[in-house]
Amino acid sequence: MNIPRCSFPRIVIIGGGFAGISLAKKLKNKNIQVVLLDKHNYHNFQPLMYQVATGGLEPDSIAYPIRKVVQTFDNFYFRLADVKEIDTKNNKVIADIGELKYDYLVLATGSKTNFFGNKEMERNCMAMKTIPQSLNIRSLILENFEQALLTNDIDERHSLMNFVLVGGGPTGVELAGALAEMKKAILPKDYPDLDVRKMEINLIQSGDRILNTMSENASTKAEKFLIELGVSVWKNIRVTGYDGRIVSTNSDLSFDSATVIWTAGVQGNLINGLAADALVARAERIKVNAFNQVEGYDNIFAIGDIALMVSDEYPQGHPMMAQPAMQQGRHLAENLIKLITKKELKPFEYNDKGSMATIGRNKAVVDLPHYKFSGVFAWFVWMFVHLFSLIGFKNKAVVFLNWVYNYIRFDREARLIIRPYKKKQMTSFTTDEI
Amino acid sequence: MNIPRCSFPRIVIIGGGFAGISLAKKLKNKNIQVVLLDKHNYHNFQPLMYQVATGGLEPDSIAYPIRKVVQTFDNFYFRLADVKEIDTKNNKVIADIGELKYDYLVLATGSKTNFFGNKEMERNCMAMKTIPQSLNIRSLILENFEQALLTNDIDERHSLMNFVLVGGGPTGVELAGALAEMKKAILPKDYPDLDVRKMEINLIQSGDRILNTMSENASTKAEKFLIELGVSVWKNIRVTGYDGRIVSTNSDLSFDSATVIWTAGVQGNLINGLAADALVARAERIKVNAFNQVEGYDNIFAIGDIALMVSDEYPQGHPMMAQPAMQQGRHLAENLIKLITKKELKPFEYNDKGSMATIGRNKAVVDLPHYKFSGVFAWFVWMFVHLFSLIGFKNKAVVFLNWVYNYIRFDREARLIIRPYKKKQMTSFTTDEI
Repeated sequence: MNIPRCSFPRIVIIGGGFAGISLAKKLKNKNIQVVLLDKHNYHNFQPLMYQVATGGLEPDSIAYPIRKVVQTFDNFYFRLADVKEIDTKNNKVIADIGELKYDYLVLATGSKTNFFGNKEMERNCMAMKTIPQSLNIRSLILENFEQALLTNDIDERHSLMNFVLVGGGPTGVELAGALAEMKKAILPKDYPDLDVRKMEINLIQSGDRILNTMSENASTKAEKFLIELGVSVWKNIRVTGYDGRIVSTNSDLSFDSATVIWTAGVQGNLINGLAADALVARAERIKVNAFNQVEGYDNIFAIGDIALMVSDEYPQGHPMMAQPAMQQGRHLAENLIKLITKKELKPFEYNDKGSMATIGRNKAVVDLPHYKFSGVFAWFVWMFVHLFSLIGFKNKAVVFLNWVYNYIRFDREARLIIRPYKKKQMTSFTTDEI
Repeated sequence: MNIPRCSFPRIVIIGGGFAGISLAKKLKNKNIQVVLLDKHNYHNFQPLMYQVATGGLEPDSIAYPIRKVVQTFDNFYFRLADVKEIDTKNNKVIADIGELKYDYLVLATGSKTNFFGNKEMERNCMAMKTIPQSLNIRSLILENFEQALLTNDIDERHSLMNFVLVGGGPTGVELAGALAEMKKAILPKDYPDLDVRKMEINLIQSGDRILNTMSENASTKAEKFLIELGVSVWKNIRVTGYDGRIVSTNSDLSFDSATVIWTAGVQGNLINGLAADALVARAERIKVNAFNQVEGYDNIFAIGDIALMVSDEYPQGHPMMAQPAMQQGRHLAENLIKLITKKELKPFEYNDKGSMATIGRNKAVVDLPHYKFSGVFAWFVWMFVHLFSLIGFKNKAVVFLNWVYNYIRFDREARLIIRPYKKKQMTSFTTDEI
């Protein structure tokens, strides 16, 4: 990879998400050589991806060039690389662009959509873990409506206008709310010759409440908000199959839908090469101790979604979200410096700052450690927190401007099919010979 | 296409560019049924596309949903359609989504890159007439630099950092300037371990001056600006071939380059079905009379780049630019209404408002009918005119914000490879085993 050796120890970080970037920033100019590898040349802000999928934001606003983050760091190297394997015996990573030795290795590879082994679902459902996937969802939604205009087959038209979201976590809830707002404010104006009232949004949750990682109060309020917006919320139902047209469940219920978005689970993005002992079957995460050290290795660490740190308080590990990832990244930086300077390591403690979800205009739920609330104020808090978490002044300003515009005008202008998702596969089209 | 007939005559417009949209706006609510067909669901602002290609703007800022433009128009139908053929005998258009009868047909299909029959060039060069093409150029520029970091082969690295732009019109000049500014302000910071001084930008013009549709003064100034920025301007040289690595010319000169961008010519986007008499071999445009009526047809019209209206003043037709297209669109709307109400048609007269090009920060050239100037003031005029020509308040605001930010910070943040253009085809890569 053309990276010169120097007298400083070399730390290789795989992944430039919340965990990797937080770690990299804290290792800045510290007499350590740092190499950051990522498949993309940008960091992306996952919590706002659903707004890219529903035409509220452009992808560039929630992405930030990694090279710009690390521009001023000494002894820092970024490489656009797809890591294929780790050779723990020889302390090196093997990527598409070559091999690289490490002194310390940090896995911050994040997570991907988990279909729990159902290949049919994986083939036919849309996922939303990357920016290209979000753009695919945006294109598909708009393509469906263009196609619905053309068909005279009522079943086909219904299927094109029926949206099924599997999974009632924050992503599913926020997407459902955003789709409901498109239905209300935008689609009737854009498609005057289509009866948009017939559009359906179905949110399916296998458990007995949505947002089940939040408080009961948040679940109840969020469900109420969704129902007000016209979303059908189905609880205690498990989706069992989707052949590209019919969604089947473990009940009598089935849905005829051209668009199923799967937000029902995530799993770690594993890389080959770790001993089997370090791996956890459930959600494919990597077992780490309280110092984020991978079980069985002295010089390999894992942080963020991919890391499973079990404690009394978190027997299933920390939630796979931005906050634990950023905190682990920052904490590991301190521990790595301690390790190199032969000081004693400090165990990681997660500081749960709370969680929140937005359902729509003036509608959000916020759980703080000692205070839970919902409604307009929660919505402003949600916006404020997300805006200030974005990297870069320009992204903050552009997102703010979009939100103000969208709020005042009840509009979303990023409804562009720049990258078509499907070639039009007309099952029926009409000839106008009048 | 599921479009009901009503008692009003039906005008079908093919193409939602400057010409088609200007026409559509003027036909708003006029007791006419209007059907607008386009391959994309957005109108795009071509004059700023070079900024998308060089990371200064996001594509969504220069694109605007067509459905939003026509939302409030009565008896107006937009369809996302790829028109394959016109059946002039039966007055109908044949598209991928079905057929449609017309009373009046307007061709506003614009233009595409003209490689003058050179298939090898068409295969290996980048073009920049659509938003996806602009994004491909952006990805390729960045991918080249990532790849240049990895190779130890000096020739390969040189080739990856050598950019050749063929054609010294406004697009070639503006791209060359933008690349030169990337070289100066952004790439050295992003690639500290690469000698960015070795990057070359070559602009090749077959004639004896660049910007040859503008004044002599503008040509001289633009060339001076480009040379100040470090661009090599080659005049009186014709590119004869490009095999993907070596650019050959009609002189001794050749270039070893991984990136050749072709801006040397455009040609009309023809649709099958018109009689051969109406077509012009040169630049594949359609001959129209002073009323934009296609030669040999009473009810078929052509406007914008695709239309060739020859007059004493414009023996080669009007320039293939936004201004004539918009003026023809607006004028044809009046004439179509006159035609339907059986009034006498008025011939089109082009009002040349002048032309301009920007080379870089504080550097532009402006030719007004009675006044020609260049430099900082010209640059502000250029920005002002382009900003106010964008459709939509939000796009104006976002572009303005980006420009202010880029100006103050000497930066461009949209340097993201969201859609990779090439799979990395390493001819050599290095293994770091130190």
